[in-house]
Amino acid sequence: MSHARESAEDRLIARYFRPLATDPGAFALGDDAAVVTPPAGCDLVLTTDGVIAGVHFFPDDPPERIGRKALRMNLSDLAAKGAKPAGFLLSLALPRGTDGAWIAAFAAGLGEDIAQYGCPLLGGDTDHTPGPVSVSIAAFGTVPRGKMVRRSTAKPGDTVVVTGTVGDAALGVKMREDASLAKRWRLMPAMARHLEERYLLPQPRNALAEAVLHHAAAAIDVSDGLAGDLAKLVEASSVAAEIDVARVPLSDAARAAIGAEPALIESVLTGGDDYEIVMTLPPQKLPALRAAAEAAGVPLTEIGRVQAGQGARFMLDGKALSFARPSYSHF
Amino acid sequence: MSHARESAEDRLIARYFRPLATDPGAFALGDDAAVVTPPAGCDLVLTTDGVIAGVHFFPDDPPERIGRKALRMNLSDLAAKGAKPAGFLLSLALPRGTDGAWIAAFAAGLGEDIAQYGCPLLGGDTDHTPGPVSVSIAAFGTVPRGKMVRRSTAKPGDTVVVTGTVGDAALGVKMREDASLAKRWRLMPAMARHLEERYLLPQPRNALAEAVLHHAAAAIDVSDGLAGDLAKLVEASSVAAEIDVARVPLSDAARAAIGAEPALIESVLTGGDDYEIVMTLPPQKLPALRAAAEAAGVPLTEIGRVQAGQGARFMLDGKALSFARPSYSHF
Repeated sequence: MSHARESAEDRLIARYFRPLATDPGAFALGDDAAVVTPPAGCDLVLTTDGVIAGVHFFPDDPPERIGRKALRMNLSDLAAKGAKPAGFLLSLALPRGTDGAWIAAFAAGLGEDIAQYGCPLLGGDTDHTPGPVSVSIAAFGTVPRGKMVRRSTAKPGDTVVVTGTVGDAALGVKMREDASLAKRWRLMPAMARHLEERYLLPQPRNALAEAVLHHAAAAIDVSDGLAGDLAKLVEASSVAAEIDVARVPLSDAARAAIGAEPALIESVLTGGDDYEIVMTLPPQKLPALRAAAEAAGVPLTEIGRVQAGQGARFMLDGKALSFARPSYSHF
Repeated sequence: MSHARESAEDRLIARYFRPLATDPGAFALGDDAAVVTPPAGCDLVLTTDGVIAGVHFFPDDPPERIGRKALRMNLSDLAAKGAKPAGFLLSLALPRGTDGAWIAAFAAGLGEDIAQYGCPLLGGDTDHTPGPVSVSIAAFGTVPRGKMVRRSTAKPGDTVVVTGTVGDAALGVKMREDASLAKRWRLMPAMARHLEERYLLPQPRNALAEAVLHHAAAAIDVSDGLAGDLAKLVEASSVAAEIDVARVPLSDAARAAIGAEPALIESVLTGGDDYEIVMTLPPQKLPALRAAAEAAGVPLTEIGRVQAGQGARFMLDGKALSFARPSYSHF
């Protein structure tokens, strides 16, 4: 509740963020609002997600990664909905006295992803907070009118497929919290680094978004764990799904960790921050989706089947796994 | 960094926020993203703003007002840009253990404004935070393509007009911080209440948005103080403005306070949270704007003139005022 002249941070923000706002609709962050002109016949898809220090990332995580992580969480939602990125708004709350190097690194990381994903910074809001660093992003994408891929449109008989590998980030967080785990899990250094990287920096599947749009019956991004997110999809669709756990795609690192400690399968299936896409589609569409995924360089694995009924069952050795904690929640 | 079953707060949020998300594009908060279908030939105008406890509001402010204040800050930006509200995304960070009554009151307040301003809740994100309550909103509006009213398009010869009254919220904050001021300023109880109300709950000028769109040459919402926001407008437009301080519209309460303590004129002109609109327009358009403002029930006052040059001068008794702190900043 204070008056202030333009602060050092104001100047830093102008210095580091204005150069990122090159889209004409951003008006170089020099107006009250930004503008998006949606292509004719398109809907705008809107999503918001954010990260708070000590909740979604460790306060000493590299600042380059923090803004990128927040942006990629949103990009992953757009990808799962079949939407092409159109831009984002950034709300940044910083403790007073956050240093210039931190802000510069944060902005530089964001700038890389703006270029990589073609998702321009359109505007933002910056405040001081007596609390921890907090980054909230609202991201926008476009889809042909009425074509956003929903959670609620899976049909019995659909095949269930998932991109990439599952569970790496959940294991990466555990290692980050307890450095002795890499040894206990007998991971080679490259494996340990892989798990840490997967936690630090999501790799959202925007390269597959157009294929999701054309081929998926229903989709959701895997951010709260495969089990929990698939449960949301089948509930929204009023169907059941049976997943063959042996087919769930795992990285070499995750496979090694589970080999050393079989109970980790629960963390792998229910842990968060995968930022993969789980989707359903009629089996006859699978070859076209596979071809598109191969062209996009995105691994794709068939893991189960949609059925009439309710609930997502994860079958291993003929029995359904039961999870103590079916879904990851930061809340 | 914890796993959790669906928490009591998750259930409260579903209980209190889902009923607010009645727009078909919100999918009842049941998907990864929301959808807006912009009317043909329209741009989407995007803005984001938020509030943090202890920075933008007092932690014991009534929760009904907190979400409304955050939403209205964004609605005010849309109004100043001539945009019609299309919806918003809500990011809410709550300390663990925030009670149900608080969440219910917060949501009830938001629900009133969703109805009053026709600005639907489209989606959101909720997290626990180790810090203070934080509310970030990204709001969307529509304007005919290319017609968003800019800050940068004021022309020498334009008249400068402002809606409503200026400085009430700045005085309201001072009273909130020091209860003895009402007496020192010799305010009647109704006057003191007026100033407090103006601080607690902005009254954005969305009723005038269409007139702003049709008649204004340039506009900005007055959120950081009339002097500071007008300075931004003239800088963006590469013009100067001369304001007749005697004509700046004041409430009876602000007039009484300044009568008791003349130095308060600086707080009135530079204080924040007015959520009025200051705009410029060619003088020949003023009658049409006046008629529209009268029809909308929005007071409008001519306060000065745009000139060639730079800077906004506030003239009183033939001299330009100089301000110690020209612009309000929460940062």
